[in-house]
Amino acid sequence: MSVVAVGTVAFDSIETPFGSADRILGGSAVYVALSGRFLHEDFGVVAVVGNDFPDSYLNLLSERGIDLTGLEVKPDGKTFAWEGRYHFDLNERDTLATHLNVLTGFEPNVPDRYKRQSIVCLGNLDPGVQQSVVSQVVDPAYIVLDTMNFWIDNTPDQLKRTLTLADCLIINDSEARQLSGESNLIRSARVIRDMGPSTIVIKKGEHGALLFTEEGVFSVPAYPLEDIHDPTGAGDSFMGGFVGSLARSRDFSVESLKRAVVFGSAVASFCVEAFGPDRLLEISRSDVELRAEAFRGLSEIPSLTYQLSD
Amino acid sequence: MSVVAVGTVAFDSIETPFGSADRILGGSAVYVALSGRFLHEDFGVVAVVGNDFPDSYLNLLSERGIDLTGLEVKPDGKTFAWEGRYHFDLNERDTLATHLNVLTGFEPNVPDRYKRQSIVCLGNLDPGVQQSVVSQVVDPAYIVLDTMNFWIDNTPDQLKRTLTLADCLIINDSEARQLSGESNLIRSARVIRDMGPSTIVIKKGEHGALLFTEEGVFSVPAYPLEDIHDPTGAGDSFMGGFVGSLARSRDFSVESLKRAVVFGSAVASFCVEAFGPDRLLEISRSDVELRAEAFRGLSEIPSLTYQLSD
Repeated sequence: MSVVAVGTVAFDSIETPFGSADRILGGSAVYVALSGRFLHEDFGVVAVVGNDFPDSYLNLLSERGIDLTGLEVKPDGKTFAWEGRYHFDLNERDTLATHLNVLTGFEPNVPDRYKRQSIVCLGNLDPGVQQSVVSQVVDPAYIVLDTMNFWIDNTPDQLKRTLTLADCLIINDSEARQLSGESNLIRSARVIRDMGPSTIVIKKGEHGALLFTEEGVFSVPAYPLEDIHDPTGAGDSFMGGFVGSLARSRDFSVESLKRAVVFGSAVASFCVEAFGPDRLLEISRSDVELRAEAFRGLSEIPSLTYQLSD
Repeated sequence: MSVVAVGTVAFDSIETPFGSADRILGGSAVYVALSGRFLHEDFGVVAVVGNDFPDSYLNLLSERGIDLTGLEVKPDGKTFAWEGRYHFDLNERDTLATHLNVLTGFEPNVPDRYKRQSIVCLGNLDPGVQQSVVSQVVDPAYIVLDTMNFWIDNTPDQLKRTLTLADCLIINDSEARQLSGESNLIRSARVIRDMGPSTIVIKKGEHGALLFTEEGVFSVPAYPLEDIHDPTGAGDSFMGGFVGSLARSRDFSVESLKRAVVFGSAVASFCVEAFGPDRLLEISRSDVELRAEAFRGLSEIPSLTYQLSD
């Protein structure tokens, strides 16, 4: 089962309290594909870059089996670039600059091999562009959607249309509160489920993630890390692991969704251990599998029956 | 195994977006004992009230089997009173007034029956008073400590001495960061374990709780509630359920501590469902046991092995 991931391919310039990096490889489609391929081989990217995008970055992706047929290179444009600075505790960041460049007027073209029954992964982008991708896929197997506060604020109607198309929305806690108008996350999820997607994943950073389905709530903790170097891409990395797990099992049951949340959390926990996508370029599938298994020890509840010792 | 809980017995005046209550029964020792007795019968309170404390409140506690031998009634004083107002999302509150009254100069007296090998539960109070209680118990079975930002700010040296006496500290996330000087909670817990207690529980409200022991981290989610009426007492209620579970099993192993975190979370989830201690006065042990079992479904990770379908 193929996965087609639309999103950004970008230059990221990042400052954290632990260092900085200039114009490194970034973008939602990059993190989704680099993370998803630990679980599933068949990932294609739909995105756009400019004439300034280096072959070395393209090779880095294609060498890892990511299909770049859907990556348009605009000969007369510059690649989307983002600059951000993280606060001391890494829980907040300021966007210093966003250069849309070739993203302006981007018209995604889904390659033929993804046009039937693929899993569609809608990375954070203009909801209109996300809709265009969905319209090009006949009988999609599953549609997973990401978004952010910018689209909630600026294109709420377009976003609501996209929500009616999605099977699953992955969103962070502050965005969930904003989209739903509810401060209680459990209520938020119920309100958002009424907007379309039957499954909601709320990402809570250091507090883990919640999965909401017709069967109720499932909670996964964050993997305990003492050193977080760079949160950039963690959310997209989660989405990649999540979608990769679904694609690998070809199963969209609640049990499979729970497993996908664990794998998403596991990959995301690697992502933040180094700058940009560096850690994702070092690790292997077995690293991801071992870490996913470690979540069991983190949250497994012992017998609640008392064996009195007296 | 007896539990002796020192803390406040108070009049609470509470405003939330959903209502208000004036001079209702409150205080850390009250919530600890009312919550702990769902799991263990033998809870005694060490606290002080004034001449204005109504018999009806005393009866309410003693009718539920709570031993008030250690509750001093000062004939010439007024009961400690707290007034607070919660913000719209209930995650923050402002203290409007604190009338220490009889708490000023409070000298706790541990009744004889708790003076040997009891479990000592040090509710949020002046760390000097907490130390006095510990000094009165010979060979305590286990010492659990709560504290708050006020003592971290104002009596750091006294608090650090109390920390060296405790087996377990229960603290909320912002207090853990403040006490440790670390923004990362995993690091915070390591730093605080070096201050004395081998076990740390970090309470995170809607994000659940983390248990840190020599075996690592254990995470329990919050019980998903759409309606939270009043968070007052939730932390003390957690402590009561936690200590009650330990006392019932007479076991301080990591497995028993994990179970105690689940029971603490279960009782606390009831506490916030109504104003003040009202909900704790309605429910039974079996309600608590059923809810504790429900945590398993919330967090149980399915098999992470893929059964490929075809």
